[in-house]
Amino acid sequence: MGNYAVIMAGGKGERFWPWSRSNSPKQFLSLIGERSLIQQTVDRLTGLFPTEKILVVTGEALLPLVREHLPGVPRGNMIAEPVGRNTAPCIGLAAMRLLKEDSRSVMLVLPADHLVIETKAFLSCLARAMELASAEEVLVTIGITPTRPETGYGYIEKTGQALTGEPEVYRVQRFVEKPDRQKALEFLSSGRYVWNSGIFAWKARLILEKIQKHLPDLYERLEKMGKYLGTAEEAEALSKMFPAVAGISIDYGVMEKEKEILLVQGNFGWDDLGSWTALAEQSPKDEHQNVSRGQYLGIDTTCCLVYGQEALIATLGVSNLVIVQTNDVVLVCSMEHAQEIKELVNRLKAKGLDKYL
Amino acid sequence: MGNYAVIMAGGKGERFWPWSRSNSPKQFLSLIGERSLIQQTVDRLTGLFPTEKILVVTGEALLPLVREHLPGVPRGNMIAEPVGRNTAPCIGLAAMRLLKEDSRSVMLVLPADHLVIETKAFLSCLARAMELASAEEVLVTIGITPTRPETGYGYIEKTGQALTGEPEVYRVQRFVEKPDRQKALEFLSSGRYVWNSGIFAWKARLILEKIQKHLPDLYERLEKMGKYLGTAEEAEALSKMFPAVAGISIDYGVMEKEKEILLVQGNFGWDDLGSWTALAEQSPKDEHQNVSRGQYLGIDTTCCLVYGQEALIATLGVSNLVIVQTNDVVLVCSMEHAQEIKELVNRLKAKGLDKYL
Repeated sequence: MGNYAVIMAGGKGERFWPWSRSNSPKQFLSLIGERSLIQQTVDRLTGLFPTEKILVVTGEALLPLVREHLPGVPRGNMIAEPVGRNTAPCIGLAAMRLLKEDSRSVMLVLPADHLVIETKAFLSCLARAMELASAEEVLVTIGITPTRPETGYGYIEKTGQALTGEPEVYRVQRFVEKPDRQKALEFLSSGRYVWNSGIFAWKARLILEKIQKHLPDLYERLEKMGKYLGTAEEAEALSKMFPAVAGISIDYGVMEKEKEILLVQGNFGWDDLGSWTALAEQSPKDEHQNVSRGQYLGIDTTCCLVYGQEALIATLGVSNLVIVQTNDVVLVCSMEHAQEIKELVNRLKAKGLDKYL
Repeated sequence: MGNYAVIMAGGKGERFWPWSRSNSPKQFLSLIGERSLIQQTVDRLTGLFPTEKILVVTGEALLPLVREHLPGVPRGNMIAEPVGRNTAPCIGLAAMRLLKEDSRSVMLVLPADHLVIETKAFLSCLARAMELASAEEVLVTIGITPTRPETGYGYIEKTGQALTGEPEVYRVQRFVEKPDRQKALEFLSSGRYVWNSGIFAWKARLILEKIQKHLPDLYERLEKMGKYLGTAEEAEALSKMFPAVAGISIDYGVMEKEKEILLVQGNFGWDDLGSWTALAEQSPKDEHQNVSRGQYLGIDTTCCLVYGQEALIATLGVSNLVIVQTNDVVLVCSMEHAQEIKELVNRLKAKGLDKYL
């Protein structure tokens, strides 16, 4: 039976601007460790999937980068979307493609750009999710044991009790949008909520049935594209048909509408690395709580993230700053505002300064 | 009679690092306005001195830069010190040189890198100082009417009353080192103190007599060097003899030891531009109190100085920062710590990172 991992690698990752650029988004950056996030994702997965069973869905413009970063993944395993349309169409395309390979394909779906610290716990969680998805006619999602009252993640409410004999497996009660601080504190203390990781497992056939049920227009278009997938006409067909697909997330389009979803709860040092601040929190720090890359000299500097590419960065008498240098941009941002970097990116677009994006 | 302006242009200007570098110190930077500080100094002086009466004393390594910045000043009017030995030897050399031109030479001595906003008031103050220095056997200094309780300047205490018929001319009571905040407030409110500008006027012969009296070793060495000044052997003679001279300031070596000094008080928007903070204070600001050079985009940013050379500098949610970019260095410093940039420079030296200096 075909067990596949599908890596979603089409993100723009603007929140890591200016290290992430439109031609090199977050998943291709070595934000933490030596390898890029997408390389680390594949490195981890090879404990469970041979590379020929790893599929990567990315943007057309990013395809050369994906090939460069992942020389071990067969070129035929890469699907290039001509435009980004969020996760439901991306997952639908991958499912169509896998169905053609093997009607019994089971797929694990995950983003390319997350942080996972404990690979062993991560893989055993994925393995359990794949077993459940194979054995039953059910959608499976991975929920992360929360470790702080995070307001930047969506949450999933579990049913009260784990399944019999399955201490880490629950039924999903409901999906919850990013909460405010007060709600996040309640979620954390209740013990009934987990973070929505965006990692899923299901039969390719099953998720397409669900898409057909909840997103019939998308399904119809996927079916039309399906026959070209894996053929020489794939790129041409996608460029004609894919842009007409409406963008929608799998969470909003399918998961939130389904009653029966299983949840495998994991605790493996996970973070979606949604901002420079999140990166700082997850990174090893020096004795003054600073995180740095490149040539750096600080005096009276505490709790800063200093990421330089070519220049020496020198700091004096500052705290709680994100300082990032590239060959043509310097960003200086307070830690508290690091979530709003997209606003800078939008402002640059509005000013026609696209060359810095 | 020979009236000369002597511009002291040997400073290192490390407090404007990283814009100032060892091979391009502060006086050669266009920190405010389009022309470099040394060009602005000469531009101003030409209202009182023809360029052939302007002498520049600088460091040997800086001579090409001086020539480039001041094409109108005759090459023969430049004295190159092989090493820096503070102001007394510098002034002594210039005096020796002028004495050879004309035994009655009167010299105005001033630094190359100060800010003067009101040129007319400045020149009328200098003219008065030159008149006094010509007419009497006395050392003359320029004192600046203080406008704030500045702790970064030396002060001069005046005698209580101006000279009869000379509302801006006083006798010097004493020179005072940089005060603490409390003392600076007292000085300001008393009305008896002015800022020590480091601008002087005197006969070349007279200052050499004073050097002979207070710094006999320096005088002896100056005399030996004197006969080579203005000849083809000048550079060789200086390279042999000047390094053996002890470094000492004219304030400490002569002025503080003299009883009879006249002071011309001026008020012409003067600043010694001793730090990035001083520059920020003297510069025009945008509606959020920011001062910027180069490509800059700020959101929620107030009271920052942002000086970029090539890169776009983007800021988000920060205040009271000095952010300076060059092709190989980024400095991020709190306004309050900008006086301590030398400490960064020293640290870089200690680490052998001289390439950034």
